[in-house]
Amino acid sequence: MSGRITDYQMSAWLMAAWINGLDKRETLALTNAMLHSGKVLNLASVPKPRVDKHSTGGVGDKISLCLAPLVASCGVRVPMISGRGLGHTGGTLDKLEAIPGYQTRITAKTFERILRRVGASMIGQTAEIAPADRRMYALRDVTGTVESIPLITASILSKKLAEGIDGLVFDVKVGSGAFMVNLSDARQLARSLINVSKLSGKRAVALLTDMDIPLGKMIGNALETSEAIDILHGAGPADSRELTLRLGIEMLRLGSVTSTDAQARNLLETALANGSAFDRFVQMVKAHHGDVRCVVDPRRLPRTRQRFAVEALRGGWISACAPKELACVALEMGAGRLHADQAVDPAVGIELAACYGERVDRGQPLAYLHVRSKRDIEKLVKRVRAAFGFSRTRPARRKLVLGRVE
Amino acid sequence: MSGRITDYQMSAWLMAAWINGLDKRETLALTNAMLHSGKVLNLASVPKPRVDKHSTGGVGDKISLCLAPLVASCGVRVPMISGRGLGHTGGTLDKLEAIPGYQTRITAKTFERILRRVGASMIGQTAEIAPADRRMYALRDVTGTVESIPLITASILSKKLAEGIDGLVFDVKVGSGAFMVNLSDARQLARSLINVSKLSGKRAVALLTDMDIPLGKMIGNALETSEAIDILHGAGPADSRELTLRLGIEMLRLGSVTSTDAQARNLLETALANGSAFDRFVQMVKAHHGDVRCVVDPRRLPRTRQRFAVEALRGGWISACAPKELACVALEMGAGRLHADQAVDPAVGIELAACYGERVDRGQPLAYLHVRSKRDIEKLVKRVRAAFGFSRTRPARRKLVLGRVE
Repeated sequence: MSGRITDYQMSAWLMAAWINGLDKRETLALTNAMLHSGKVLNLASVPKPRVDKHSTGGVGDKISLCLAPLVASCGVRVPMISGRGLGHTGGTLDKLEAIPGYQTRITAKTFERILRRVGASMIGQTAEIAPADRRMYALRDVTGTVESIPLITASILSKKLAEGIDGLVFDVKVGSGAFMVNLSDARQLARSLINVSKLSGKRAVALLTDMDIPLGKMIGNALETSEAIDILHGAGPADSRELTLRLGIEMLRLGSVTSTDAQARNLLETALANGSAFDRFVQMVKAHHGDVRCVVDPRRLPRTRQRFAVEALRGGWISACAPKELACVALEMGAGRLHADQAVDPAVGIELAACYGERVDRGQPLAYLHVRSKRDIEKLVKRVRAAFGFSRTRPARRKLVLGRVE
Repeated sequence: MSGRITDYQMSAWLMAAWINGLDKRETLALTNAMLHSGKVLNLASVPKPRVDKHSTGGVGDKISLCLAPLVASCGVRVPMISGRGLGHTGGTLDKLEAIPGYQTRITAKTFERILRRVGASMIGQTAEIAPADRRMYALRDVTGTVESIPLITASILSKKLAEGIDGLVFDVKVGSGAFMVNLSDARQLARSLINVSKLSGKRAVALLTDMDIPLGKMIGNALETSEAIDILHGAGPADSRELTLRLGIEMLRLGSVTSTDAQARNLLETALANGSAFDRFVQMVKAHHGDVRCVVDPRRLPRTRQRFAVEALRGGWISACAPKELACVALEMGAGRLHADQAVDPAVGIELAACYGERVDRGQPLAYLHVRSKRDIEKLVKRVRAAFGFSRTRPARRKLVLGRVE
């Protein structure tokens, strides 16, 4: 960051790392160099355990929003620094900002105060955190060196280790809607993240989870926030609810709140059922100057006036639901951005009406498009319809969690 | 060169090529792209055969200066575009410019006229020739990607193919004073140069020659020019004279002037003996506005007022004479440059008084340092002395030509 290494030298180095790889000690050294290129938070005043979750990014992944207040209500502090969406992957920050007034830029002092009082605070990455990562990512993006496990590891951890946490749970997504398309690559990335986290003195565990279909029912910022609120009320789609619980169990175990999965699940389900998880969310939103009325009544969240049904042109079992294609349609509708400086529309998105493994009849809705206008609606409907695959027989059940690395 | 590819993208690509290599078709494509980034000379008005020689660079390598007029006097046209010295390697251009007045920058029209009338013209590379090579070389220099056989091949040939030649003889130097330290790397580079030359429609042959000891007796610009003049008079050190003949034979054979090595050698030796080779050199220097008096009487070339003897501190057989170390001393004396924009002192250099395989007694001179002042002379003397190795028994004879690739 001093300018002594030029962009062209950094690019040449990135290409060498991309081709030859880095071993775990080298990845640790890179991570540390990137971490210490910026500010590292000191959360000594925040009681332990302090555990965060990181997802490698998927479609419909709104888990952070409900998971952070849920585990906070069970005694784990969650200092979460999140990013914005880019390309087909959504970002937690954009979902939080769908709540009018929610401030994602607060001072380190305020962050600490909220963590002490509420137990969870979700903010955006600042320019002060791991600036070398931003510089390197910009170069990787234009030199074909994004897809490198050690470089991804260092990029993720240089930001996460700046959070002042004791433990870290990774949700490594696997499948056509994820960065890692196959299980063996995903396992390698999980292994690398765990290795470097542990070498950095953090407790860490990773779940490998399915991203061959979208997670939950909602794709789009306010839509996903409302799904997260549903989960906090003990409801919500089965898969996103279950993933919240599975990741919550890992966070509670990592924070030594409980010693068995069953106890952890019990604590989490109780917190969802008795309203304490939802209450934490309300407190967090309030602390961040968000409009609490929108959380209490999600119909107040930004929404479009109309929604258009995407009807099935044939009946059958839904055997595929391409997450990347749906995300690209949502992006085109305005829910995402192609360049870092674009604004997103919080209201637009796709609401799935049918999902993998369900039977639909001809004419039954597959999804609803929440759009501002009818412009291009036919094209969008066609693309969403084409994202679904059908079979005559019931497709095999999908596993939500495909593996665990610790 | 349009700017569409940024420096950082080019650097990343160079690193990928450095690590993964390029096959011969890829190297050809790169060479062509670099060649056509600039001007390609059209020498249609110059009678064939048109053959050039390229040396990969060594210490004391003044062969071009005598070789070009020698083969020109035997009927081969030599359109030679040369470079300047950088680091420990000398450059033909600096040696030519030791002749007061010699113009290395002339128009393409003048170059053609001299080639028609004299048969040989030696000029400097212009900004118009292969500009992509300059840009890429500048990046390779600062990204650790210099030592790559395909990148070296494309760099050399993009400039040489711009000369409008029919054939090309390579002198690939091997040893501690060369770019290629071992024979197998040198052979690979020779193979690559020959392959791409032939794919470009040129006749080509390479000699692999010894660079574990300096070539000839002189290291330094005017000193080397005077040694080249000695060779043109049929004299000069045995090794540099013999290499001139060996490369001349290849050029004559490539140009189909003769069909056997013996005939070619005979032609060349006759041209040296009867003064026609030297006469060509005089004509070439005159055509380039050089001071011919300095060629006729080399004592008129730039020279220092004094020279200091480096005496042997022990007697014995000389079993080593480190070329790189001697070149570095000459560089420090002002004969070379570390940065492209530095000027060189034509007068300074090292004159070897004893060479590999000779016996010296204690106190006998090993070399003479031609310097402007006595400053640091003791340090220089010590370093030159340390470049020599001694043995009690006569060392094995060295082969000058270690291989041939065609």
